Amino acid sequence: MSEVERKCREAKSAASKLAVTGSGLKDKALLAIAEALERQEQVILDANARDLKAAEESGIRGAVLKRLALDHKKIAQMTEGVRQIASLRDPVGETIDGYIRPNGMEVRRIRVPLGVIGIIYESRPNVTVDAAALCLKAGNAVVLRGGSEAINSNLALAGIIRDTLAANGLPAEAVQIIETTDRAAALELMRMKAYIDCLIPRGGKGLIQTVIENATVPVIEHLDGNCHVYVDDAADLAMAEEIVMNAKVQNPGVCNAMETLLVSEAVAAEFLPKICKRLMDAGVELRGCEKTRQLVPGIKEATEEDWFTEYLDLILAVKVVSGIDEAIQHINTYGSHHSDAIVTKDYSAARRFSNEVDSACVFVNVSTRFSDGYEFGKGAEMGISTQKLHARGPMGVEEITTYKYVVTGNGQIRQ
Amino acid sequence: MSEVERKCREAKSAASKLAVTGSGLKDKALLAIAEALERQEQVILDANARDLKAAEESGIRGAVLKRLALDHKKIAQMTEGVRQIASLRDPVGETIDGYIRPNGMEVRRIRVPLGVIGIIYESRPNVTVDAAALCLKAGNAVVLRGGSEAINSNLALAGIIRDTLAANGLPAEAVQIIETTDRAAALELMRMKAYIDCLIPRGGKGLIQTVIENATVPVIEHLDGNCHVYVDDAADLAMAEEIVMNAKVQNPGVCNAMETLLVSEAVAAEFLPKICKRLMDAGVELRGCEKTRQLVPGIKEATEEDWFTEYLDLILAVKVVSGIDEAIQHINTYGSHHSDAIVTKDYSAARRFSNEVDSACVFVNVSTRFSDGYEFGKGAEMGISTQKLHARGPMGVEEITTYKYVVTGNGQIRQ
Repeated sequence: MSEVERKCREAKSAASKLAVTGSGLKDKALLAIAEALERQEQVILDANARDLKAAEESGIRGAVLKRLALDHKKIAQMTEGVRQIASLRDPVGETIDGYIRPNGMEVRRIRVPLGVIGIIYESRPNVTVDAAALCLKAGNAVVLRGGSEAINSNLALAGIIRDTLAANGLPAEAVQIIETTDRAAALELMRMKAYIDCLIPRGGKGLIQTVIENATVPVIEHLDGNCHVYVDDAADLAMAEEIVMNAKVQNPGVCNAMETLLVSEAVAAEFLPKICKRLMDAGVELRGCEKTRQLVPGIKEATEEDWFTEYLDLILAVKVVSGIDEAIQHINTYGSHHSDAIVTKDYSAARRFSNEVDSACVFVNVSTRFSDGYEFGKGAEMGISTQKLHARGPMGVEEITTYKYVVTGNGQIRQ
Repeated sequence: MSEVERKCREAKSAASKLAVTGSGLKDKALLAIAEALERQEQVILDANARDLKAAEESGIRGAVLKRLALDHKKIAQMTEGVRQIASLRDPVGETIDGYIRPNGMEVRRIRVPLGVIGIIYESRPNVTVDAAALCLKAGNAVVLRGGSEAINSNLALAGIIRDTLAANGLPAEAVQIIETTDRAAALELMRMKAYIDCLIPRGGKGLIQTVIENATVPVIEHLDGNCHVYVDDAADLAMAEEIVMNAKVQNPGVCNAMETLLVSEAVAAEFLPKICKRLMDAGVELRGCEKTRQLVPGIKEATEEDWFTEYLDLILAVKVVSGIDEAIQHINTYGSHHSDAIVTKDYSAARRFSNEVDSACVFVNVSTRFSDGYEFGKGAEMGISTQKLHARGPMGVEEITTYKYVVTGNGQIRQ
C-alpha cells in the first residue's frame, strides 16, 4: 500500500472516532496544542531554518521565501488562532432546522462532521496548524499535502499536534502529513474517493486546474481573487481614498487585495489625480484606461488582459466607468467572483451593488482586505472558496461540516 | 458551436436574469406552468406514446417501460408538485445569519441562486418537470439531458414550460433540453465548467461513475440506496412488522426501499418466522445468514455480496445481529449511507442509532420509504444526494442555492 493510501485509511478510521468525540475533549486538546506549539517554538524554528536554507540554496527568493519563513510573531499568531478556535461553539450536533410533518413524524437536520478533508497547499506552514485545528474542532480528520519546500516545518508542526492529540486521548492519526511531495502523490490523493470526503486545493491556477482535471474526490476550489473597489459618484471621497489605499497597499500579495480600481466618471476628475499620486508615492505601478490617462498623464495603458489579471503585487489597473451599471457589469465580466467593494453614500447604489455583484463577498464602505476567516470571526480559515457549491467565501469550522436528517416517529409507513 | 455549448450559454444568460426576478413573477409562472401542463395533457400523452412505441420496438420491457410511461394520474402528480413548489417560501434573499464584528462592520450571509444546474438522468419524464420547477423557484436556469428513450416526452414537457415562461415575461432559455442524446454530448455537458455551476447525475452506478471520472463541473452524486431496517431487542414487534413490510414491498424499485433486514438475536426467534412468512407471501425472495436460515428453513443463503447489494426488486437480505453495536457496524460497513431505520422502544438505542449511523437520513420507528423530498415537505426533489458536500439526502429548493456575504460598514480598513 502506498504512503498516500495508508495515511488516508488511517485518517478515515480516526475520523469515525472524532465524529463521536464531545467538545470538552476536543477543546482541551486544542488548548494543549496551542501550549505545545509555544513550548516547542525552537523545534519549529529549527525545522523552518532547514527549509529556508534548502530553499535559498535552490534559488527561491522573494514572496515565496517570505511566506515560508516562520518567526516568534507568526507562531504566536498561529497559537492565538488555535485558542480562538477552541473558544468557538462546537458546530457538531447543532440542530439546523426541524419541523413536524402532517403525519406526525419529526424531521430534524443535524450538523455532523464531513469526515476526512484533504488539503493540497503550497509554501505557508501556518496552513498546517490552521487546517488541523479547524478540522479537529469540527470532528474531521485531515490529510495535508504541503509543498516540498516546507516539508520540515510541516512535519515539525504536525508532529507536535499529533503527540498532543495522543497525550489527550484522541487519535494522532486524525492529522496526516504526506511526506512524498512529488506530483504522483498529489494525483493519488486527488483520487482517494474511498477515504476522502472533500479536497481543498490552495495555490496557483496551475495547481487548481490540475485538481479540477484529475480529482474524483469532490473539490472546493480556492482560486484567484481579482478584486475591485468601485468609487461611486455618491462616494465619500476621503473614505474612498483610505479604502483604496488599504485594499491595494496594506498587503498586496494576498487574494483579497484590490487589483482593479473603478471610478465613476462624475468624480473621476476630482478623485483620480489625488489617489493616483498617493498610490504612486506608495510604490504602486498604475495601468489606466484612456480616460484615466487623460486625467493622470504618464501612466501605462491598461490592456484587456489587465482587467482579468490578479497581480498579487504593487500594480493596479484603473478604469473610469459611466456609473454603477458599468461598474457592476465590469466586475461580473472580468472579476473572479471573490471580493468586491463599493464606496458610496447612496442607499440605492449600495443596495444594487450588494444584490447584483455576483461575488462571494460584497463590501459596502469596507476594504476588501476583510475577506478573511479570522476577520469574519471564524478564528482561522480553511481557505476562501471561489466556487458556489457547498461553501462560498471564507471557510471556517461550519463550512467543513455537513448534516444528516434524523426522522423520528411512532410507526409511520408510507401510503 | 455545439448544441451543448450553445444551450449552456443561453442558460447562463437566462440565469443572470432569473437571479434578480422577484418571487411574485416566479410563482405566477409556476402556477401558469401547472395549468398549461394540464391543458395540454393530450400533447404530452401523444409524445409519450411515441416514446413508448419506440421503446417497445427496441425491446425495452419491465421497470424501464413503467418509469417511462405517463398517464393522467402521473401528470396530475407533476402539476400538484409544481403548485406545491409555487406555495413554498422563496429561498432567494433569505438572511441565513448575520452579526456585527468588533470593528462595527455588519456581516450577513444571504441566500442566492446557484446559477445554472445541469442534470443527467434516465427514463423518468417527471424529472423534467420537477427539476425545471425547483430550479425556477430558486432562481436557477437548468440544462436537462434525459435519456434518449424519453426524448419526445421531455421535449413536449419542456416546450410547454418554455412557452409559459415566455408568456409570463421570463426567459424561455432558463429551461434547456439537450436533444443530442449520445454519450459524447453527455461528456461535453460534464465539462461545461464555464457555464454550469453544479451537475446532478441521477441514474445507475455506471452513469455516476462516468460522471465522477470525467466531470470538471462540481457534482452532487445521487448514488444507490442500500437501505436497512434494524429491529432492536426493544422493538414493538407489531410496529416492526408494518415498517418492514412497507419498506420492502410498497415500492421495491426505488432507492429508499429496504434491501437488508437486521434483527437483534434477542427477538429473532419470535420475529423472524412471522415476518419472513409475510414477506414470502408478498412475493419477496429472502436471502438469509446462517442464524436466519436456522429459524426460517428453506431460504437461500446470503453471501458477502448480498450485504452490499441494492436489489431494487422483491429480494431481501436478512441477518441476525447480536444487538445495536453489530447493527450500526453492519450498516456503516455495507450500507450506502442513504437511509436507514431502527425500530425500538429504548431511548438509549434510538439515541445511539441516530448519532452513530453515518447516513443521510436516519429513521427511528419510521419507514425508510419517507426519504423523499415530497415527503419531507419540499414539494418535489432534485434527487437524493449520497455525498456529504453541499447537500445530503433529499434536495429541494434550498439545496439548489448558495449564499454570498454582504458586509456593510462606514469606512473600515484593515490594520
